[in-house]
Amino acid sequence: MNLRKGILNIERLVEVKRDKGIGVLIPKINLLFSPPIKKEKVIKAIDGEVKKETLALEDLCKRICMQILNLGAKEVFVDMQAEYATTKLTPKTKQETQTTYKIIARTFGNKEKLTNALGVEVVGISACPCAQEEIRKKLNLGNKIPLPTHNQRKITTLIIENPRNIDVEELIEIIEKSMSACIYEVLKRSDEVEVILKAHENPFFVEDIVRNVLFNVKNFDLNKNSKIYVRSVSLETIHQHNAVAEKVVRFGELEVD
Amino acid sequence: MNLRKGILNIERLVEVKRDKGIGVLIPKINLLFSPPIKKEKVIKAIDGEVKKETLALEDLCKRICMQILNLGAKEVFVDMQAEYATTKLTPKTKQETQTTYKIIARTFGNKEKLTNALGVEVVGISACPCAQEEIRKKLNLGNKIPLPTHNQRKITTLIIENPRNIDVEELIEIIEKSMSACIYEVLKRSDEVEVILKAHENPFFVEDIVRNVLFNVKNFDLNKNSKIYVRSVSLETIHQHNAVAEKVVRFGELEVD
Amino acid sequence: MNLRKGILNIERLVEVKRDKGIGVLIPKINLLFSPPIKKEKVIKAIDGEVKKETLALEDLCKRICMQILNLGAKEVFVDMQAEYATTKLTPKTKQETQTTYKIIARTFGNKEKLTNALGVEVVGISACPCAQEEIRKKLNLGNKIPLPTHNQRKITTLIIENPRNIDVEELIEIIEKSMSACIYEVLKRSDEVEVILKAHENPFFVEDIVRNVLFNVKNFDLNKNSKIYVRSVSLETIHQHNAVAEKVVRFGELEVD
Amino acid sequence: MNLRKGILNIERLVEVKRDKGIGVLIPKINLLFSPPIKKEKVIKAIDGEVKKETLALEDLCKRICMQILNLGAKEVFVDMQAEYATTKLTPKTKQETQTTYKIIARTFGNKEKLTNALGVEVVGISACPCAQEEIRKKLNLGNKIPLPTHNQRKITTLIIENPRNIDVEELIEIIEKSMSACIYEVLKRSDEVEVILKAHENPFFVEDIVRNVLFNVKNFDLNKNSKIYVRSVSLETIHQHNAVAEKVVRFGELEVD
Repeated sequence: MNLRKGILNIERLVEVKRDKGIGVLIPKINLLFSPPIKKEKVIKAIDGEVKKETLALEDLCKRICMQILNLGAKEVFVDMQAEYATTKLTPKTKQETQTTYKIIARTFGNKEKLTNALGVEVVGISACPCAQEEIRKKLNLGNKIPLPTHNQRKITTLIIENPRNIDVEELIEIIEKSMSACIYEVLKRSDEVEVILKAHENPFFVEDIVRNVLFNVKNFDLNKNSKIYVRSVSLETIHQHNAVAEKVVRFGELEVD
Repeated sequence: MNLRKGILNIERLVEVKRDKGIGVLIPKINLLFSPPIKKEKVIKAIDGEVKKETLALEDLCKRICMQILNLGAKEVFVDMQAEYATTKLTPKTKQETQTTYKIIARTFGNKEKLTNALGVEVVGISACPCAQEEIRKKLNLGNKIPLPTHNQRKITTLIIENPRNIDVEELIEIIEKSMSACIYEVLKRSDEVEVILKAHENPFFVEDIVRNVLFNVKNFDLNKNSKIYVRSVSLETIHQHNAVAEKVVRFGELEVD
Repeated sequence: MNLRKGILNIERLVEVKRDKGIGVLIPKINLLFSPPIKKEKVIKAIDGEVKKETLALEDLCKRICMQILNLGAKEVFVDMQAEYATTKLTPKTKQETQTTYKIIARTFGNKEKLTNALGVEVVGISACPCAQEEIRKKLNLGNKIPLPTHNQRKITTLIIENPRNIDVEELIEIIEKSMSACIYEVLKRSDEVEVILKAHENPFFVEDIVRNVLFNVKNFDLNKNSKIYVRSVSLETIHQHNAVAEKVVRFGELEVD
Repeated sequence: MNLRKGILNIERLVEVKRDKGIGVLIPKINLLFSPPIKKEKVIKAIDGEVKKETLALEDLCKRICMQILNLGAKEVFVDMQAEYATTKLTPKTKQETQTTYKIIARTFGNKEKLTNALGVEVVGISACPCAQEEIRKKLNLGNKIPLPTHNQRKITTLIIENPRNIDVEELIEIIEKSMSACIYEVLKRSDEVEVILKAHENPFFVEDIVRNVLFNVKNFDLNKNSKIYVRSVSLETIHQHNAVAEKVVRFGELEVD
């Protein structure tokens, strides 16, 4: 690898023209390029692109990459992460509630080949299948009653290369249906019961969630060389440490696992 | 308040002579004093005290305070926080497992009166009583079977002024018995079942945990003017946000609540 | 103090109707109330207020407080912090450059009396006067030539109670003129020289910056009981630790120092 | 890549038998392994190794890796990072002052081949050569007088694969002599002048520091395939963002740059 120079923690307000939701993001931008270019030129290029019309964060990311290549870089890497606010309906009483997700846009490569990636980080819940099974055995209970187990706050990330026309909302949906249950900022009692019972009826290990996400990604129409990156971190309630599972795989090799 | 100057994020390795456990701590030290004194003198004073024999972090904290007063400060505030490693036995199979806690020593005041405080931050688990009750009602089940509910990683802090001869291990014990259950780094299956069932048989709201801690603090023999500070933060598994409860109260007013 | 319950790390996208700049903020909201109220009701109240027209973050903060009091709280504390993006011109070549600041809105009290506070956190530069003077003596140089010294990234916070019609931009301006120099995201060489020379011609200790801010605050027309809170943290370049200075004072007592 | 499972944020107190300095470290341990193994077995293995005599953090890291391979892992990655406290003498008045560094031990691979790496993160100062030169031109001054420029807190990391008998102190030394100047927790006035003048006489861009470190690494006797990783982050005093430079290179290819 050549020496790479870069800039970290640039924050810019970006207006994004979207059909749904309010189109303002304040991404944190980290970038690396090789060989070194004067930092002020790079930031001026970013500011120029931020002012132009932007349809999606990943487009801005790509345009910034191209500007840095135009400034003389042979290699470039740009990562942008922003809070994205949207609304969803609670499961039972169907109330609208705002939720935020972290969206990730990443472009890297050179003049010959730039790779784009789009990603999202989603918080959800998982219930542990192992402890639940042990409790069932110990209490000698049948399969009908949902039994207690420890459940955890789970932070799951999915990043897809060459996402074509995939929208960030589709990535969020995939993760949310891959966890034991989806979580909400406001829950009435009947909603809460619904979320908890669903989580306990769908207990998953952290590695199961990675597999579920990959299984759901298969429905996309992606280039077979596109890399898929999945990571799930579990804030254990019965331990101080966190559990994690991750997998990086090309779309064309998704069947084999 | 007069203008206060200070130094943040000082790290020092401190050897503590203790009967139990290994006596090395690497506290982060934050301090404020008024009027301004040259920073280098303050740090030299800290380094001098760090080299002397220390029997407990709170003693070092007090000695540093006095040194800063000797340098000409009229008012001083010193806060030290360190990871403290100790061992405990798992509930069922009685295996020894190492755990770390954050311990807090704080001294503040002036030449006439210095107040010392000792505290600890402990991670544990709580199970939610409300959702459990709703599930019981919905499934029309009796009281015998432990029913599922969402459970959370809970970070609880207890700080006590003028702790006299109270040891940090006693503060840890109080918090651990105030949560739904105590957690461990290693748990065999039968230990895990024990922890989870205990948590589900002792469901608590975040404010209950604060009350439990205060109830247990009553057994100490403290000066009635000593302030007790309790805070519990709940990393909710069914929400992105955290819940919190806190109370600051003088020991002599603990009955009244 | 009574037991207070609360919610931490709520994130909401808020549209703010402003004359200048783009009116979108994504504040992190922390709140405490006493006695405990059901968390879901509080979040629903927040969501209701977020949807209404908002002219400033501090208005939203106040409205949320009042809603929580309406839900039965006797005491309430709400803190909102958001990235705020605006543009400024570089000192020499007058180029427009985007900068972000953290703005802070805070409301607390009870039905009889609510106190509002508005604040801002600004990053700037300071140069150390002491080392500069020592170098002047050592090299036996006159006063004309700007001599080197260590300079630091400085993070300065100003919060004002009952700000009446003060705009956040006025608070930013006060801090920026209280540091050794104002900083920019993009600087051409001649701008850079300007910033560095200005900083070296206005060397300040961290406590000087607090005094400068307070001196500038005096020009406001505030209630004499309004508390002013100033804090400046210095990321020292010649030490691992940070220096800090802070002062809390009522507006009516600002003269006396 | 196969699915990897892991554990994050394990903290353990480790006693290290060293000739110099106090031998206690509290590393944070992150690890990944494939295929999934029961987490409790992994933590039990860690606890077992922590109890044994340890001569260096990197040895413990390697032993933990081997235990996880013995538990059935085909691939394993272990990263340990700990605060390391040592003392150095100030440049002029030769006073002893305690400093902390972050040390990094990393082992990864499989039963056939395990790679060990040792690293360190050091905080220092750099002065900017570009602005200094511009100021010299503008003020039309000769080369004798050290001119002001902005200087930054610099966080530099060096990690070396297969370090053989290299001690962490040697890595610290290399970074400290590669920055504009070394920093200290306590500095008398004459020390301070020394540090500042040295920094201003050795101005470096962030990429220069990476090159300096690599130049100094050449004196080691390493396997030509050993990868060297260098990264330097600059907390800019005239900007809100940080600058960064990094390079990963095999020891045998160090000449070519």
